Amino acid sequence: MASEMNRLAALRAELVRLGIDGVIVPRFDAHQGEYCAPHDERLRYLTRFTGSAGIALVTADSAVIFVDGRYQVQVRQEVDLDAFEISHFYDFPLERWLGDKLPGNQRIGFNPMLIPSDLHERLKAAMQKADGELVALEADPIDAIWPDQPAPPTGRIQHFANAGEAALDKRRRIGARLAELGADFLVETQPDNIAWLLNVRGSDVRYTPLPQSFLLLDRSGETEWFVDERKLPNDREAYELEAVTTRSPADLLGRIAARSGGKRALVDPRFASVAAALAVQGAGGTVLSETSPITIAKAIKNGTELDGFRSSHVSDGVALTEFLSWLHEHVAAREMAGEPITELEAEDKLLAFRARGEGFVEPSFRSISASAANAAMCHYASSEATNAPLTSSGVYLIDSGGQYLSGTTDVTRTTAFAPVSDEVRRTYTAVLKGFVALMTAQFPLTARGHHLDALARRPLWDLGLDYDHGTGHGVGHFLSVHEHPQRFGKVVNNYEFAPGVIMTIEPGYYREAEFGLRVENQVETVAAAPGFLRYETLTLAPIDLALADVSALTRDEVAWLDGYHARVRAALVEKLSPSARAWLERMTAPIGSPPP
Amino acid sequence: MASEMNRLAALRAELVRLGIDGVIVPRFDAHQGEYCAPHDERLRYLTRFTGSAGIALVTADSAVIFVDGRYQVQVRQEVDLDAFEISHFYDFPLERWLGDKLPGNQRIGFNPMLIPSDLHERLKAAMQKADGELVALEADPIDAIWPDQPAPPTGRIQHFANAGEAALDKRRRIGARLAELGADFLVETQPDNIAWLLNVRGSDVRYTPLPQSFLLLDRSGETEWFVDERKLPNDREAYELEAVTTRSPADLLGRIAARSGGKRALVDPRFASVAAALAVQGAGGTVLSETSPITIAKAIKNGTELDGFRSSHVSDGVALTEFLSWLHEHVAAREMAGEPITELEAEDKLLAFRARGEGFVEPSFRSISASAANAAMCHYASSEATNAPLTSSGVYLIDSGGQYLSGTTDVTRTTAFAPVSDEVRRTYTAVLKGFVALMTAQFPLTARGHHLDALARRPLWDLGLDYDHGTGHGVGHFLSVHEHPQRFGKVVNNYEFAPGVIMTIEPGYYREAEFGLRVENQVETVAAAPGFLRYETLTLAPIDLALADVSALTRDEVAWLDGYHARVRAALVEKLSPSARAWLERMTAPIGSPPP
Repeated sequence: MASEMNRLAALRAELVRLGIDGVIVPRFDAHQGEYCAPHDERLRYLTRFTGSAGIALVTADSAVIFVDGRYQVQVRQEVDLDAFEISHFYDFPLERWLGDKLPGNQRIGFNPMLIPSDLHERLKAAMQKADGELVALEADPIDAIWPDQPAPPTGRIQHFANAGEAALDKRRRIGARLAELGADFLVETQPDNIAWLLNVRGSDVRYTPLPQSFLLLDRSGETEWFVDERKLPNDREAYELEAVTTRSPADLLGRIAARSGGKRALVDPRFASVAAALAVQGAGGTVLSETSPITIAKAIKNGTELDGFRSSHVSDGVALTEFLSWLHEHVAAREMAGEPITELEAEDKLLAFRARGEGFVEPSFRSISASAANAAMCHYASSEATNAPLTSSGVYLIDSGGQYLSGTTDVTRTTAFAPVSDEVRRTYTAVLKGFVALMTAQFPLTARGHHLDALARRPLWDLGLDYDHGTGHGVGHFLSVHEHPQRFGKVVNNYEFAPGVIMTIEPGYYREAEFGLRVENQVETVAAAPGFLRYETLTLAPIDLALADVSALTRDEVAWLDGYHARVRAALVEKLSPSARAWLERMTAPIGSPPP
Repeated sequence: MASEMNRLAALRAELVRLGIDGVIVPRFDAHQGEYCAPHDERLRYLTRFTGSAGIALVTADSAVIFVDGRYQVQVRQEVDLDAFEISHFYDFPLERWLGDKLPGNQRIGFNPMLIPSDLHERLKAAMQKADGELVALEADPIDAIWPDQPAPPTGRIQHFANAGEAALDKRRRIGARLAELGADFLVETQPDNIAWLLNVRGSDVRYTPLPQSFLLLDRSGETEWFVDERKLPNDREAYELEAVTTRSPADLLGRIAARSGGKRALVDPRFASVAAALAVQGAGGTVLSETSPITIAKAIKNGTELDGFRSSHVSDGVALTEFLSWLHEHVAAREMAGEPITELEAEDKLLAFRARGEGFVEPSFRSISASAANAAMCHYASSEATNAPLTSSGVYLIDSGGQYLSGTTDVTRTTAFAPVSDEVRRTYTAVLKGFVALMTAQFPLTARGHHLDALARRPLWDLGLDYDHGTGHGVGHFLSVHEHPQRFGKVVNNYEFAPGVIMTIEPGYYREAEFGLRVENQVETVAAAPGFLRYETLTLAPIDLALADVSALTRDEVAWLDGYHARVRAALVEKLSPSARAWLERMTAPIGSPPP
C-alpha cells in the first residue's frame, strides 16, 4: 500500500506548489457520464477505489473518501485505511465535512472541468460557512503527479445513419428552443447529447458508443464542436456537419468567453462543468440554469429510432431465450457432473448468443449474472473471487443488455432450475404483480415518475416489503443505457412522459445473503385515451411463471401475461433453434392450460 | 357599480398621498388562514369579489385582479369589468404582470403583514426585473379608505381541556426542537398553531374555533402572546398560561426587533408575514426559513385527541346516517307531491341532525349539498339562486363536517334515489375502487402524499378519467378542517406520515353539467408491518353500493367494504332512530348476500 502513500505525498507537495490547503478529487470526468476513460480515473489512481461514484478530499493532514451505501464494503477492501478516512456520501457528505470539520480560512482547490454547477454551489456555500475559499484550478493536480496517466481516448467517430432526423434539422430545432427559453447559446458537455445532435457515434468509453467532446450551439443552429481531430475521419462527406466548425477541446472555455459578453448562455446545472458557467460569467454573460433542451428532445424517440428499438429487441429476445433455454437444459446435468455452470460462464454464453444478433456491437453495461445469494446485491458484478455456480437449489438473476446499431437494450429475468421456496414464490409473485401493474397502467399526461412508482411497489408494500432502488430509467438509442431525464422512483422527477419516451420497468426484491428477484422489461410510451399515455413492451422474452403463485394473480394480470407470452412466442419462435423453440413454447403456454 | 369606482379613486388618492405608484391588495389576513374575519375582507371591499383566494394590483392607470381557475366565472359576475382587468392567478400571475407589464421605475406598495415571505421573494424579484421597487407600507391603504370597516374580531377565548398534553409541555417540546434546528426563537403567526400550543380555542372566524393572535416562543418555552386583551377571560386560573406574557398584537414587530440582534429566528416562509422576517433582519438577526415545528408536531395527534376523533365520528356518523335515511324516505314522496327537498333544505336538515351530537359546536366548513349537475362543481356552495331539488333522476353529493369539542369531522357521501345510469355506475365504481385502494394501502415510512396519490387515481386512469383536486388533506383536532402539512396530491408534499396523522381520503369524478361523485372518509395513520404504516377509518357512515357495479369489485375490495359496513353497523345501530336503523341495516348488508 506504499504507493498510495507516495501518491498522497506527491499530491500534498503539489498543493504546496499551488499555494492551496487542500484539493477535491471527484470520480467525474469533464462529461459527468456513467463510464470514465482510463485517462480520467483520477480518483482510482489516488485511492485505488474502483466504484462508479465517489469523491475525495485531501489536505495537508487529512485524506477522506466519500462513497455511498453501495460501496461501503468495497471501499474498505480497496482503499488503504491507514491513508484514507471513509465517510458516507449522503450521511456525512463532503459539503458537511468542509463546513464542520475543516479548520477556518482554508483554500481548497478543485478542477472546475470536473464539477457541475449544482455541486459547486453546495461546496462554495460550505466553504463560506467555514470562512474558507473554494479555488478553481487551471490544471488538475492529479494529472501533475500521475506519470503514466493514460492518454485521453481517441476512439474513432462514425456517422450514425439510423437517426431518423437530419442533424441540421435537430440543430435548428434545438436552436429554436433556445430562443423560446431566452438563451442566446447552449453550452453542451454531455457526449450522448452531442452524439444525438450531430448523428455521430464513437468509442471513447466502454458500453456506450459515444465520443467525448464539447459543443456550443446558437439559436440559428450554428455549431462549434470541440473534438480531438484524431477521432474524426478524413473523409467527412457522408457526415452531416454543415454549419459545424470543429475546434480543439482545449479551446472550449476561450470560445465560451468570446461569445458571452452581454449574452445569455444555457448551462445545465446538473451535468455541465461549472468551468463553463464561470467562463460565461467571467466574460460578462448571464447563465440560464436549465436542463439541456437536447436532453429533453433526445428522450422522445422518432419513428426510425422506435422501429430500431423494436428490431433490436427481436434480436435480443432471441439471444436471451436461447440463453435461458440452454441454462435450463444444462444446469442440472452440469451440477450432477460436478462441473456446474458458473456466473461468469453464463455471462460469456449470453454474450456469445447476443453477438450473433444483427448489428450487435457490445454489451450495454456489465451484466449482472447472479446466482442465489449473490443476486441479493442489486448492483452485483461477478468476478473470479465471487463466481458462484448455478444450481438447482437457488434462483438465478440475469440483468443484461446490448448495444445494437438499431437500439440499446436492457432486460432482467429471474429463473430457477427446481421448485422454489414458499418465500421466493410469495415475493416473486408480488414483484410480478407490481411489474404488471406498471406495464398496464394508463396515466394522464401530468403524471411523473414519482407518481407512477408506487403502482409497482404496492404489492410488495402489502407484504411489508420494498426495494431500495428506482423502478426504471430512460434508455438511449444506441447510446447510454441509463439515459436522463425521466425516471421512476421515490425521488421527485419532474420530466414529463410523451409518446416515444423509452423506459425500463424493473421492480425487484432482495433478501440479504439469501436471494434476489427482479423482472425488467423495456417499454415505449404510447398514446392512450385522450390526455392519457401507457407503456407498450419492447422486450420480448419469456417471464418464468414457475416461480410465481399463479393462483394469486387477478384475471387482468393473467390476461396480460398470457397476451404478452403469445406476443413473445409469435415474434421469436421462427428465429430460434429447435430446442429453444420447444422450451419457449412450454414457458409461454397460457396460465391454467394443460401442459402441451 | 359606481362605488367601486369611488373606492378605486379613493385608493389612488391614497397612493398619491403615500408617494407610491401602486399597491398590492391580497385576500390574505395577517394569519394566512382559510377564513377571514369581515375586518380583513379588504379585497372584497375593493372589488366585490367574494372568493377565497385572489390578489389585486392597483396603479394610477390600471387595476387588475388575479384569481385561479375555480373563480374565473364568478369573478366576472361580481367585479366591475369597466374598473378591473381579470388575470389568471397561475397562467399570468401577479409576478409576471409586475415583471412584464409594469412601466419601469415604479414603486409598488404592500402591507407586509398580509404577504408571506415566499410570495414576497417572488414579487421582489419581479419588481427588480422591472427596475422598480417593492415598498413595505406601515399601514394598510385599504384601511385608510374604508370608512365603515368592521372592527377586528374579539371572539372570546376559552381554555381547551381535551388537548391531552399540558400546554407547558408542548412549549418545552417545541422549544427543544428550536434548539435542534439552530433557532433561538420562533415567530408564530398561524392561529391554529397558537391555539394548539396554548390549549385554547376561540371564535374569531367562521367554521374554525381559533383566536387570531401572534406568538413568540424561545428555546426554554418562554412565550410572548400577542392577543387582544378583550378576548381573554378575567379569570385565567383554569388556563395554562405559566410563563406566558400577554401583549398587544400591535407590539409584535417591536418585540421581534428587540429579540433579534445576533439571534436566529425561525419564520415559516409559506405562512408567516414577511413583516416578521423583515423585523428580524432589520434588527440584525438571521431568519431560518423552515416549516413551523408546531405545524409538524400538531399533525401527530396524541391518544386523547385520537380518542376524541373516534368519539366525534360516532356522533357524526349517527347524524349523517339519520340524514341519509331521512332523504331516502322522503325524496321521492316530496318530488311526487311537487314540493321537492332542495339542496339548502337538505343542508339545514343535516345541520339539525349534527346539532344533536354531544359537543357539537358548528359546521367545520360550508357544506357542499349538491344535486345532479351542481355536484360537477367540486367546490359548489348552494344559494337561493342555484338551489336545486333532490330528485330521483340525479345523484346527490353531500360533503360536510362538524366541529365537535372532541374533534373535527369531514365526510362525503354520494347517493341516489333511483337506479343510476351506466355512466354513473361505471365511474362511481372506479372512484370506489380508488377509495378502497388508499384506505387499504400499507406503505413504507418513506412514502409521501405525492407517492400514494396515484393509488387512488389508478381505477379512473384505467378509464381515461381523472379528477382535478387533491386526494386528501390533514384535519385539525377541533381546529382547521384543512390542516397542513400532509396532503395527498400530484403536487410534491415532502411531509412524512406517522402514527396519529389524520387525513381525509376523497377521490371523486366530475362530469361538467351532468353529475359529480365523491366518497370521502377521514382516517388516522397507524403502525403496520415493521417500517410500514396504513390508515384506519375514523368515519362511520354507509357507502351507497347501489351506485356501484359490485361484480367489478375484487375479492379484496368486497371483503374490505363488507368489513367496513359491519363496523359502521356495530358502532351506530344502537344510537339510531328505528327507521334509520332499518335503513342502515339494508345499506350495510354484505355484498352478494340475499336481501334481508
